[in-house]
Amino acid sequence: MKLENRIKHELIRLLLQNRSHFLSGEEMSKQIGCSRMAIWKHIEELRKAGYEIEAKPRSGYRLQVNPDRVSAAEVSAYLTTKRLGQHITYLDTTTSTQTVAHEWAKEGAPEGAIVIADNQTAGRGRLGRNWFSPKSAGIWFSLILRPQIDLQAATQLTLLMSVAVRQAIQKATGLSPHIKWPNDLLINEKKICGILTELRGEQDQIHYVVVGMGMNVNTPYTMFPSELQNQASSLAIETGHQMDRAPLIATLLAEIEALYDEYLTDGFLPIKLKWEAGAGMLGERITARTAKNTVSGIATGLSSEGALLIQCDEKTIPIYSAEIEV
Amino acid sequence: MKLENRIKHELIRLLLQNRSHFLSGEEMSKQIGCSRMAIWKHIEELRKAGYEIEAKPRSGYRLQVNPDRVSAAEVSAYLTTKRLGQHITYLDTTTSTQTVAHEWAKEGAPEGAIVIADNQTAGRGRLGRNWFSPKSAGIWFSLILRPQIDLQAATQLTLLMSVAVRQAIQKATGLSPHIKWPNDLLINEKKICGILTELRGEQDQIHYVVVGMGMNVNTPYTMFPSELQNQASSLAIETGHQMDRAPLIATLLAEIEALYDEYLTDGFLPIKLKWEAGAGMLGERITARTAKNTVSGIATGLSSEGALLIQCDEKTIPIYSAEIEV
Repeated sequence: MKLENRIKHELIRLLLQNRSHFLSGEEMSKQIGCSRMAIWKHIEELRKAGYEIEAKPRSGYRLQVNPDRVSAAEVSAYLTTKRLGQHITYLDTTTSTQTVAHEWAKEGAPEGAIVIADNQTAGRGRLGRNWFSPKSAGIWFSLILRPQIDLQAATQLTLLMSVAVRQAIQKATGLSPHIKWPNDLLINEKKICGILTELRGEQDQIHYVVVGMGMNVNTPYTMFPSELQNQASSLAIETGHQMDRAPLIATLLAEIEALYDEYLTDGFLPIKLKWEAGAGMLGERITARTAKNTVSGIATGLSSEGALLIQCDEKTIPIYSAEIEV
Repeated sequence: MKLENRIKHELIRLLLQNRSHFLSGEEMSKQIGCSRMAIWKHIEELRKAGYEIEAKPRSGYRLQVNPDRVSAAEVSAYLTTKRLGQHITYLDTTTSTQTVAHEWAKEGAPEGAIVIADNQTAGRGRLGRNWFSPKSAGIWFSLILRPQIDLQAATQLTLLMSVAVRQAIQKATGLSPHIKWPNDLLINEKKICGILTELRGEQDQIHYVVVGMGMNVNTPYTMFPSELQNQASSLAIETGHQMDRAPLIATLLAEIEALYDEYLTDGFLPIKLKWEAGAGMLGERITARTAKNTVSGIATGLSSEGALLIQCDEKTIPIYSAEIEV
C-alpha cells in the first residue's frame, strides 16, 4: 500500500475504533507513525469525503458521522477475526468480485483473503445467472478459502455459508432468514442473500474455493428491476432502516470463521444440524428439477454428505443439484 | 494459423494419409489451394526436417519415412473422432500442458480442444507432484471437456479416462495394463501412464474439466531418473520396440470419445463395469491412507458414484481420496 493510502487507512480505523472519545493529533501521529501535519491534512480530506469529524482544542478529534463505505479501512476497523479478512482488496467498481478473487487465488492469495466491491457491473449468481449489484446498496464480496477437503465435500461449504449468513443477519438485525436450498437466504419468502461457491481442484485436493456473496442491505424497493420486485428484498426494506455495511461484513466474517473452524475440526455434522434448524422447507412438499428428471416429495433434511433428501413414496432420494419449488 | 503454416499442416496430413500411393504436385496444390511452387518449397522443407519423401516423375510424391512428431498436422492426420481433437494447440516445449489448457478453457476453448507438448519442463501429477516428461519420449497432453454433470460426478471422469487409456494401449500394443486407483496405469507393476483431472466449477455445474495425461511411450530405461527406475516403465521397454506417438494419440482420443459419449448417454454404470474388469487390485488386501486415517481391507470394487469400496470386517468403506498400497 502507498504511504498516503496507509495513513488514510490507519486514520479511518483509529477514528472508527475510538468514536466514544477524543484522540489528540499527537497520539494519532504517534500510533500511525506520521507527522501531525499529515494527520491534519488527511482529516481535512476525510471531511471532504463525507466524514463528519469534531475537533476540540486540547482534546483532539472525534468521529461523529461516517459515510457507509466498505473499503479495506472501514471493514478492518470492525474485524474480530483471526484469519478471514486479514487481506482485503477493495474496488469501487468491478465486473464481478468472483473474477478478481479467482485471479488473486491463482497468484497465491492466502486463505481468508477477500475482495469487496462497492459496485459490480456483472455480478454473477448460480449457473451463470446475473446478480443485481447496484452501487453502495449491498455487500458484494468474495472470500478465498483453501480447505484440505475432498472435492466431494465442497458442496458442504455452501451450506456452511448459508448458516453463517443466517446467524450474522440474526445478530445484526434480529430477523431470522430462512435458508432455501442450496444457496439462498429469504426473509418473508423474498431473497435477501445469495451465495455462489466456485472452486478449482482435482479429485483429491481442492486448490482453492472462492465463495461469493451478494447481500441486499440498503437497496430500496424501487431500485430493484421490476422482474425482481416480487422475489427480492433488502435488510433495509425488512427492518425499516438503513444500516452500515462495514460492521455487517465484519459480523459475517466472524460467523463464517467460527463455523469454518468448527467444520475443519468436527466435520460436517454440526453444520448440518444448524442448517436443518434454519431451513425453511423441511417437512414441506417440494419439487426438485434436476438436469435429468423431476422429483416431488417431502424435504426431510440433509444427508451426512450434504445432499438434500427428498422422501418420495418409500424411497429417500438425495439431490445434489436442482431447481427447487416449494 | 498463418498461411505458410496452414500449407505445411495440410501437406503433412496429405502425405501421411496417402502413404500407399503417389500424389501429384498438381493434385496436392489443388486440394490445399496453393501454387505448385509452394508445394515444391514445402516438400524441400519437410525433407530438411527429417521427412523422407520419394519423388517419381509423372507420379508425384510419396512419404516413406516420417519423424515421430506430435504437432497438430501429424495428430490430425490420424484422427477418427468427431469432437475430440478438432482444436489442437501444439507446443515444442512448455511448463505444463495443464496450465496452458486452463488458460485456453477460461478464454472459451470448445469441448474436445487439446494441448500437446513435445516437452514439459514442469509436468504436473496428482497433488502437485512432478511428472517426468522428457522431450519426444512420451505423450504429454491435456484435454478440455465441458460435461453437464454435477461436481460430485467429476471423479468418474478420471475413472473413465483410465479405462480409455487401458483400451487404447491394448489396441496399439496388445498389452493389457492394470488400472491402479485412482489415476495410474501399470504394466508389470510399473507406471506407464498417469492421469490428472482438474476442474473449475460450482456446486451445480462444472465450468470445465482439464484432463491431463502423461504416457511413457519411447522412454528408454536409462532415461528415467534413478528414483523412478523401479516404479516407471514405457511402452517401448515393455514391447521391445519404439512406436509413433501421433497415431497413438489418435487412438487414445477415439477410445475416450466412445466412452465419454457412452457415459453422457448411459451414465456411470458401463464405465464402472469396464473399470472393475481392468483394475489390478480387486479382491486383494490394500491399505488406503486418507488425510484423516488409514483403512486396511479388501478392495471390492467401485460404488455407483465412483468411490473405491474397501471391505473392512463387517463394513464397506467408500474411499474418495487416498494413497493406496497393495
